[in-house]
Amino acid sequence: MYRKRLERRKNMNFNLQEAIEILERTPEALDALLSGLSAGWLNSNEGDGTWNPSQVIGHLIEGEKNDWIPRLEMILQEGESKPFPPFDRYAHLREDPKRPVEEKLREFKELRLESIVKLKNLVTSESQLELTGLHPDFGQVKLRELLSTWVVHDFTHISQIARVMAERYREDVGPWEAYLGVLKKR
Amino acid sequence: MYRKRLERRKNMNFNLQEAIEILERTPEALDALLSGLSAGWLNSNEGDGTWNPSQVIGHLIEGEKNDWIPRLEMILQEGESKPFPPFDRYAHLREDPKRPVEEKLREFKELRLESIVKLKNLVTSESQLELTGLHPDFGQVKLRELLSTWVVHDFTHISQIARVMAERYREDVGPWEAYLGVLKKR
Repeated sequence: MYRKRLERRKNMNFNLQEAIEILERTPEALDALLSGLSAGWLNSNEGDGTWNPSQVIGHLIEGEKNDWIPRLEMILQEGESKPFPPFDRYAHLREDPKRPVEEKLREFKELRLESIVKLKNLVTSESQLELTGLHPDFGQVKLRELLSTWVVHDFTHISQIARVMAERYREDVGPWEAYLGVLKKR
Repeated sequence: MYRKRLERRKNMNFNLQEAIEILERTPEALDALLSGLSAGWLNSNEGDGTWNPSQVIGHLIEGEKNDWIPRLEMILQEGESKPFPPFDRYAHLREDPKRPVEEKLREFKELRLESIVKLKNLVTSESQLELTGLHPDFGQVKLRELLSTWVVHDFTHISQIARVMAERYREDVGPWEAYLGVLKKR
């Protein structure tokens, strides 16, 4: 048990400055990838109940509004006294499917900029990373875990968007399917 | 059999203009994601024998030099008369590991621009997409399949880079690991 915990600590890499490097790059990277694309790409998905690239941006917008900073503020203000309100992972599916992706990308970029300003103002010392809050499913979570998750959540959705668009050409690649990691079914 | 072939055709989505939309966005998207990042991110990988984000850019450069356009030209000039020379998927691992990623990103961007100019000059009619060449492992392949693969190959490596960097925070996210698709082991 002691050995196991030691090993876990060895693999801890979180660093606030490096985390912010990713958080500030994601909107630009997604803008470069998606802005101006044909509807064929933006509306493609992996089948019923899966999200297209434009819907993923809608989900990222929801995160900026209702997930990351609000939960960070709850940890700082409430600690473990009350759980985070649950985050609606389907909220963005109720929005107008015709809203241009460029408009969503712009909104995401603005909201993310505001989030980073708040993050820098709110988290100013290493010791705050150990502060805890109450997750509705997981129970006790640390500020460090929330911020790490924010970063990995960006990567999840960058990776998802690439995977979803790749899916469109699954048949078109012919025999090369065998070499293309992104087309491997999980 | 007839049914099966019909079904395959139904899922064919390749379109040259749309393919170019992706090919021209990839360098910008990767530049936005990686340029200026700390060494911690750029040197991270998924364990022994796996590539870090900077090495992935090296591999994409190799593709522009020795894979996509050279094979396209072989199909147009040689047809199936001789096989493509094999592509060295490890060539980039022999290059200077200290070369700054920003320099690699710039080279990739320039090479990709040239590739797209060549592609537009070389492929000017729909009927050329059915031309065939000889792949050293697969045998007969179509021009359409080569170009589709080029696009999906971009997506593969965008997705890989996001996955590799996410891996760095696997332990840091704590209980959220369960919710983060990108951390699921294949």
